[in-house]
Amino acid sequence: MKLRLLTIIACIGMQHAYAQDSLQMRKIADEILLHGTCYENLRVLCKTVGHRISGSPEAAKAVTWGEKAMKEAGADKVWLQAADVPYWCRGKESLYLKMGKDYKKVRALSLGNSQGTGGKTLEAAIVMVHSFDEFNALPDSKVKGKIIFFDYRFRQDFVFTFQGYGDAVKYRWASPSVAAKKGAAGVIIRSMSTGKDDFPHTGGMHYNDSFAKIPEMALGNITADQLEQACEKGTPTAKMTSECRMMSKPVRSYNVIGEIRGSETPGKIITVGGHLDSWDVGEGATDDGAGCVQSIEVIRAFKALGFRPKCTVRAVLFMNEENGDKGGEAYADSAKSKHEQHVLAIESDAGGFSPRGIGLEMPEAQKQNILKYKNLFLDYGVYDFSREEGGTDIGPLKKQLNVPLAGLMPDSQRYFDLHHTDNDTFEQVNHRELKLGAAVMAQLIYLVSEHGM
Amino acid sequence: MKLRLLTIIACIGMQHAYAQDSLQMRKIADEILLHGTCYENLRVLCKTVGHRISGSPEAAKAVTWGEKAMKEAGADKVWLQAADVPYWCRGKESLYLKMGKDYKKVRALSLGNSQGTGGKTLEAAIVMVHSFDEFNALPDSKVKGKIIFFDYRFRQDFVFTFQGYGDAVKYRWASPSVAAKKGAAGVIIRSMSTGKDDFPHTGGMHYNDSFAKIPEMALGNITADQLEQACEKGTPTAKMTSECRMMSKPVRSYNVIGEIRGSETPGKIITVGGHLDSWDVGEGATDDGAGCVQSIEVIRAFKALGFRPKCTVRAVLFMNEENGDKGGEAYADSAKSKHEQHVLAIESDAGGFSPRGIGLEMPEAQKQNILKYKNLFLDYGVYDFSREEGGTDIGPLKKQLNVPLAGLMPDSQRYFDLHHTDNDTFEQVNHRELKLGAAVMAQLIYLVSEHGM
Repeated sequence: MKLRLLTIIACIGMQHAYAQDSLQMRKIADEILLHGTCYENLRVLCKTVGHRISGSPEAAKAVTWGEKAMKEAGADKVWLQAADVPYWCRGKESLYLKMGKDYKKVRALSLGNSQGTGGKTLEAAIVMVHSFDEFNALPDSKVKGKIIFFDYRFRQDFVFTFQGYGDAVKYRWASPSVAAKKGAAGVIIRSMSTGKDDFPHTGGMHYNDSFAKIPEMALGNITADQLEQACEKGTPTAKMTSECRMMSKPVRSYNVIGEIRGSETPGKIITVGGHLDSWDVGEGATDDGAGCVQSIEVIRAFKALGFRPKCTVRAVLFMNEENGDKGGEAYADSAKSKHEQHVLAIESDAGGFSPRGIGLEMPEAQKQNILKYKNLFLDYGVYDFSREEGGTDIGPLKKQLNVPLAGLMPDSQRYFDLHHTDNDTFEQVNHRELKLGAAVMAQLIYLVSEHGM
Repeated sequence: MKLRLLTIIACIGMQHAYAQDSLQMRKIADEILLHGTCYENLRVLCKTVGHRISGSPEAAKAVTWGEKAMKEAGADKVWLQAADVPYWCRGKESLYLKMGKDYKKVRALSLGNSQGTGGKTLEAAIVMVHSFDEFNALPDSKVKGKIIFFDYRFRQDFVFTFQGYGDAVKYRWASPSVAAKKGAAGVIIRSMSTGKDDFPHTGGMHYNDSFAKIPEMALGNITADQLEQACEKGTPTAKMTSECRMMSKPVRSYNVIGEIRGSETPGKIITVGGHLDSWDVGEGATDDGAGCVQSIEVIRAFKALGFRPKCTVRAVLFMNEENGDKGGEAYADSAKSKHEQHVLAIESDAGGFSPRGIGLEMPEAQKQNILKYKNLFLDYGVYDFSREEGGTDIGPLKKQLNVPLAGLMPDSQRYFDLHHTDNDTFEQVNHRELKLGAAVMAQLIYLVSEHGM
């Protein structure tokens, strides 16, 4: 009976706490939906800096932009954290396909980190395969000196498109070394794309040092369909020219960090971040300008509301997520060497779309600590806490310091239409969707800062 | 004990049934995500017909398109159902604002059903108010002969944007009669818009016959902001010219209906629909080309899967949702006069965005019949069954025959950026989001057809 009474009192207490939390979450959302500056910040980043691959002059410009934006948001302290990053340069490139009588120039993009043809032209017959298995079954004689077309389709039947990406991305990442092992001269892939268009998608690839480093280019879906048909009927050839190369020396670059010092336990840190670098196409709006401006928005909203969290909250614009994670590693290295106590890190790197969930990459007990607030997020369209997802940039925090990670999970339908393409521009981001994502991250940070993990 | 055993058996039976249902739902989604033609259908509707206001030649062209598309989808039977609809014509229109020294032409749209200025130019000083209360507090002398600017902002703090629309739309609908009652000469409104842009939004308005029928025009948010500032500083004037008018006679038009005859209970009918008419701007892609092609997709997918539902399934492209609902009434009238038994009607008229929920407008017991499948929809991003929403076109079915209604509830963030604007084009619709919405409607229809309501 006593126990029951205590339970009832505890429940009432909890309901009361939740009512307060619910109100505070509403205030945060109102502030961001009505007065948020993240959309305007994204416009400035996209239109005055544009794309910004690690090590490039544009990336340096983005660091300057980030520092200014973080100060304008009202962070107590803003600083740069050094990270030496690789610098991959595209240079000039072209792909001509002879699918009928004549060569025709097609849209194509070399894959990131790949070596080109040294500016020379590689001309060879194309051999199409649909999988590694199919490729491995070919005799070496069929492959030698050829350009292999890895025609693997992004599976559109997965509702959660990151599943389709996970399924397909090995063809982008590993095809050149798989092909070179049997003597191929170059690789063409169908882009990792859900698009009904012809945008080629770039993205990271990797060479196995045991084999020749042959060039790799990606086609958009429409050209890939045409090439597929041409390969079914005959033997098309390609002329591949690319100057792309990895520069020999790393470049000094920076993470941009802004922080609000905690009111009660400033030694406890909550990190919220996105990545500042992008591929060298489009404007890097969805990947990941969105995550950067949302992280800055958390700082701005807390300051505008006069809310000083108990824990220190840090917004971090990480450098070099796309091809090295050097920024993420530098941040974790620094945290470790300074014996910082990190309570939670949350990343937004799945696009500025309408939020649907929060991925949780942490032990079950900590998950339960967050799941008790689950219903409070329903009003903001967030219902899915089932995925084990943090983010690449915050990954080293977990690896080195066992920090619990969370990842904002927006609607995934449009992401792989845009990802790593010339079409990833400011115009593809909706102001309300972007702001809602920022609000949800700010709400989670509020809850964890007030109540602990 | 016996009862318990029976319960267990019943539960196992139910789990088994759910497993079957889950598999069938997956098949439906796969078919639509991989082979759906709704996106291509939408392209043809938008690019070859374009916008299609009731009574217009374009609406007639859309009927022909719909009939063809429904046949291509494989419907057992396709027919047209007559409905006499109003025909509102925009004609030429212009709005000049003098906010500083000189008149400047601005983007504006007359509101649907409104009377223009008969092609003459109405020039008058502008009086700004922010609400009906503020307007009603003004003395008549301040209003007489003036153009009233109802500067009410769409509330961006509502997460579900239809709530903001419901809050604001009275200013579009009723302002002219409210203003005319006190002798105003014309009305300008801030559009019912979440947009960060200058697209004016048209949409239905209504005259109270007791007062003068004065013209009404809408401004996009950017021009409305400029006019607001000008009104705060001084007294801007406007020159309003518009030929718009309601034609004196109704025009014969049609609903387009395609049906799959039920295998076991063909007398029981499930209706799925969207509306074929649009406003006379943009391409009517989101409102409501999307709902039309999704409804056709349900038929196509069932036929392609070789699935013959127990009940008859009818896809209906309703005419005249925007300014009369004559198509919806004709459909219900016919159902009533033929003593048809309608089990469920579901409408998609909230955009072709990623689905999040299904609105249920039906008695509690019937709701429970659908809610038992709730978890089966989670894999498709559908979790919200809490809203009491059907759709305008299917409304008369409920009114006349007490038919339970459902409404597809997609993500609402982008809808009121596009609604009734020149920007409501095919390009604003994402192929995967559109298909997912169609899949969810087909899944619901499958469940209700197999298991009843």
